[in-house]
Amino acid sequence: MSLYAENKKRVAMNIDALAHIAYNLRVDVLRATTAADSGHPTSCLSAADIAAVLFFHTLNYDITNPQSTNNDRFILSKGHAAPLLFAVYKELGVISDEDFMRMRTINSVLEGHPTPRFDYIDVATGSLGMGLANGVGMALHARRTHKGFKTFVLLGDGELAEGSVWEAAALAVYYKLGNLIAVVDVNYLGQHGPTMHERDIKTLEQKFTAFGWQVYVVDGHSLNDLVVTFDRIQQLGHEKPVIVLAKTVKGYGVVSIEGKNGYHGKAFSAEELPAILEQLKKRFYQATWDGDKQPCCHVVKKQCDANKRTLSAPSFIAKTPPYRVGEHVALRQAFGNAIVEAGAGMDTLICLDADVGNSTFVDLFARKFSDRFIECFIAEQAMVSIAAGVAALGDTVLLATFGAFLTRAFDQLRMAAIGRLPLHVVGTHAGTDVGQDGPSQMALEDIALFCSLPQSVVLCPCDAVSCHNLVTLALNYSTGISYVRVIRGLAPIIYENNAQFKVGGFNVLCSSPDDSAVIIAAGICVHEALEAYTQLKKQGISVAVVDLYSIKPIDSARLRDVVKNAHSRVVSVEDHYAHGGLGAAVCQALVGMPITYKQLAVFDVPHSAPGEQLRSLMAINAQAIVESVRHF
Amino acid sequence: MSLYAENKKRVAMNIDALAHIAYNLRVDVLRATTAADSGHPTSCLSAADIAAVLFFHTLNYDITNPQSTNNDRFILSKGHAAPLLFAVYKELGVISDEDFMRMRTINSVLEGHPTPRFDYIDVATGSLGMGLANGVGMALHARRTHKGFKTFVLLGDGELAEGSVWEAAALAVYYKLGNLIAVVDVNYLGQHGPTMHERDIKTLEQKFTAFGWQVYVVDGHSLNDLVVTFDRIQQLGHEKPVIVLAKTVKGYGVVSIEGKNGYHGKAFSAEELPAILEQLKKRFYQATWDGDKQPCCHVVKKQCDANKRTLSAPSFIAKTPPYRVGEHVALRQAFGNAIVEAGAGMDTLICLDADVGNSTFVDLFARKFSDRFIECFIAEQAMVSIAAGVAALGDTVLLATFGAFLTRAFDQLRMAAIGRLPLHVVGTHAGTDVGQDGPSQMALEDIALFCSLPQSVVLCPCDAVSCHNLVTLALNYSTGISYVRVIRGLAPIIYENNAQFKVGGFNVLCSSPDDSAVIIAAGICVHEALEAYTQLKKQGISVAVVDLYSIKPIDSARLRDVVKNAHSRVVSVEDHYAHGGLGAAVCQALVGMPITYKQLAVFDVPHSAPGEQLRSLMAINAQAIVESVRHF
Repeated sequence: MSLYAENKKRVAMNIDALAHIAYNLRVDVLRATTAADSGHPTSCLSAADIAAVLFFHTLNYDITNPQSTNNDRFILSKGHAAPLLFAVYKELGVISDEDFMRMRTINSVLEGHPTPRFDYIDVATGSLGMGLANGVGMALHARRTHKGFKTFVLLGDGELAEGSVWEAAALAVYYKLGNLIAVVDVNYLGQHGPTMHERDIKTLEQKFTAFGWQVYVVDGHSLNDLVVTFDRIQQLGHEKPVIVLAKTVKGYGVVSIEGKNGYHGKAFSAEELPAILEQLKKRFYQATWDGDKQPCCHVVKKQCDANKRTLSAPSFIAKTPPYRVGEHVALRQAFGNAIVEAGAGMDTLICLDADVGNSTFVDLFARKFSDRFIECFIAEQAMVSIAAGVAALGDTVLLATFGAFLTRAFDQLRMAAIGRLPLHVVGTHAGTDVGQDGPSQMALEDIALFCSLPQSVVLCPCDAVSCHNLVTLALNYSTGISYVRVIRGLAPIIYENNAQFKVGGFNVLCSSPDDSAVIIAAGICVHEALEAYTQLKKQGISVAVVDLYSIKPIDSARLRDVVKNAHSRVVSVEDHYAHGGLGAAVCQALVGMPITYKQLAVFDVPHSAPGEQLRSLMAINAQAIVESVRHF
Repeated sequence: MSLYAENKKRVAMNIDALAHIAYNLRVDVLRATTAADSGHPTSCLSAADIAAVLFFHTLNYDITNPQSTNNDRFILSKGHAAPLLFAVYKELGVISDEDFMRMRTINSVLEGHPTPRFDYIDVATGSLGMGLANGVGMALHARRTHKGFKTFVLLGDGELAEGSVWEAAALAVYYKLGNLIAVVDVNYLGQHGPTMHERDIKTLEQKFTAFGWQVYVVDGHSLNDLVVTFDRIQQLGHEKPVIVLAKTVKGYGVVSIEGKNGYHGKAFSAEELPAILEQLKKRFYQATWDGDKQPCCHVVKKQCDANKRTLSAPSFIAKTPPYRVGEHVALRQAFGNAIVEAGAGMDTLICLDADVGNSTFVDLFARKFSDRFIECFIAEQAMVSIAAGVAALGDTVLLATFGAFLTRAFDQLRMAAIGRLPLHVVGTHAGTDVGQDGPSQMALEDIALFCSLPQSVVLCPCDAVSCHNLVTLALNYSTGISYVRVIRGLAPIIYENNAQFKVGGFNVLCSSPDDSAVIIAAGICVHEALEAYTQLKKQGISVAVVDLYSIKPIDSARLRDVVKNAHSRVVSVEDHYAHGGLGAAVCQALVGMPITYKQLAVFDVPHSAPGEQLRSLMAINAQAIVESVRHF
């Protein structure tokens, strides 16, 4: 029997024991936030009874083995209540009081908001409204892998204003996730003032009911209500996700501030603390308790090692691609082919879509591996957070949509990066190449976005062969988020099938001892550069052409050599806005070199027009390159 | 009487006339998309009857004066139905058939998805799910300015999966916007396949009802139903926003593809077109029609001038700030003071918050000008789209939240940039200075994001005086989005109150003829640079210090001079990730100069810890600067 099961048995319906635990949690939350001189104690106090019941009564969890694939999962979507979660783990004996009291200090893995640096956390939270979609991902993983675990998500009521919650709420019902249980700590107060619904829990109930959830409304400070409700939920076994709306009071237990506005994110001072704890004691202390504050289960303290987590690190070797030089192939087609091949080679590869699978060609994967395909409809934020939830449980996860629409989920991508989840992201329809559909559909800031993420790699194929290779490299990259940027249109294949690619590499497509300049390009602009090369050649001007397919990281030393050998004259050309893209990366790589440099990029919002005309209008085409070289 | 009113009278309940118009719209949509060889005809066909009734029966609109403040507003949230909207304006006589047929070509203002390059469009749409929040902004503007116009938003059912729709839906009810009318073209088909709800309109009805909307379900191809319903809505006058769920069929009118999957975003070929039009004719043509396809109202064709729109261009002159050198003041406090002053000077200044007004100090404005303050709760996407809606009607709009959470609304910011809306954005709690709350709360990619937007300016104050000045400069910037990055903590004031600032400027804080290097910093790092300056001075090393408060644009020529005068040795230091921030801007500005350069920046995800310790850990503090200079 697991320790959790033992625990569960021990406390069973022993409400007194749970009350004691909840009291301990409250005391610890107050002690630790005062010690840290920061944190959100009042947001913890409202949820303390919920946490006590969930962790000491409801959850099935082997506390000695947090990575066990049979454990129920718990996500603290209201991440600012982190001290409460850490207090739970202290109470469970996982964390010593000494470690607990050092939360929020530089060497502690117990951060201000939960991150997976602490082993017992699966996903980073703290930007609100993402936990439910993370939970959808985990619940889908449970179903696919035929595991019986349930996923519990604790939300605040303030974060219900985030649309991402409703994306997840809709998808949980669509996917009939009866193994997903959400609990909302409805304490009626946000940071700035009352929440949108204040005490109108009826409307919240109607909203979730209309979205298709099984809703329970309980007194979130009645341990008995909570125990009975969670017991009932455990027996349901139906296809509806369940949500418990727990009516609570912010700051509950500290009578002087209970339910009062203006105490969000405020720790009590060391001077105030004794009186505060005294209030708490008066409110809760019962003579029948044994009075000690020992953890109720005794497990060996586990040292939580920073950055120890190892997630999916696939080593997938793709076959040589089957293309022919000169053939015109859509890169999206090559991408689709590559993930079908990867799907056959890796049975934990999961792909997600946001209703554009026929455009991104993720459809090819979906048709072949329907059990490993997740359609998220037009809900990009949910797509990324669901992907994060799936990835956190060890699957290799790829998601694809138009690059432009990844901007919709950038906060979710940022949080995945903080959580060190190796998401594999593909953005199609990159740049002005989208053409007539116009600027709203064009990814023109995507390189800037993905480069900004820590530990990310950003790869830009220019033909089907490089696309095949770069998608494969991306799938093998597991220390951060990988991004592959794919254009919409057809492109002639320039690489032989045995061409070599590596993260941080680039290929010199043309060079001679007479080169008077080097053109550095990626994606569609490689073809413009090659055309410029040909035109310049005819005019007796020799230039080098570099396919800088790896924009981050970049092989700076080698690039400098190439530039030196081309009279230190450089033209960079990109189908991306002028800031944060290929040109910026080139400038950073070549900083300090005495070069003459011209940046060709998109400097203003483009129009609707065929891609070729736009490249001309934006001066990122062969002619613009030729003129740049001729006028050095 | 306006032409619209005339029109309305003329067609009144004349369903035949509306049927004729709807037929004309369908014919034109098909002709134009075939001519463009692209576009989304089937998504237009499903909404043609709705458009006919709205524009030729319901809306109050002076067609000769699109900017009139009395006009009802119309937002095409399902932006891919742009050809339908343009067909309406052709039918209204605003666009000639020749111009209409040139849509999606390079010199046309009729783009693939609507943009305000065409005068009759207020906000750019095309990234789905934003129109409803734009409409909330317009409806709030109407209420504040005591205008009687109504705002109509046409959505697709696919985009209801976007959480941003539900953010707006909740806020419309919270603000009791009875002057907001949404219509959903429920055609059951997305791009990739059926929508999430398919034909289950009952659930959609329940969802909007639970959210507090007045819901009508109609046959979206029954002109009679539509007319009756919109007439009824016009008479309501209550406080509930109204939504019409119109059951439609994708591709309606072209029998061979009606309601069939696989025809999203596909134009018919020139060869197919005659047979398609023949199907349409058979389906709709009645002998009673006069058979001509002339517009039903005849106004002089209006030349729509590209980029003609002039929105709010305030010229607000702030008073000299009231601070004292050496005093420690939170920049947020200075920001709050500055907008209170601006609010007094500009009666069209509107501020928006997302439940962190007490942290950003937007509260100071809210308390003084409650009628010009919009609380969006924890819904950053809605905040930006509402701001866009308000700005599109001419107000000066500032929105503020933690810089980290602006990532949540980057797609909305991107669309505002495409729509050329001069939003004034302030992101507080920038960088690791956030400290113990941890990485989820730290804006570390915000400079990269805002620099990537076309026509944006990015300003980083380091003390209260510069904050006061830069917020004022930002409020006066009207050709694009301005971003002011504000740190959380206190900072000593280094500037005299009469110090000068300009967009594209920087200040040399220390310099001498003996400088062996220049330290370029912004924000909190300016203080680290000044501390490094002092320490180096003691060691007999003289350096220049630059406060690069304007990161975009950047005065490259002058910066090069400063660098030359400091032995061409440069250290840049920033509390931002290494890509796309100050360092990248410096590299782009100094490209080609033979300099020795070191970049101090945040290279990996930070921890929870006090800001000062984090700056040490991340090597962006005075000590790191000193060591960089000493080891050049």
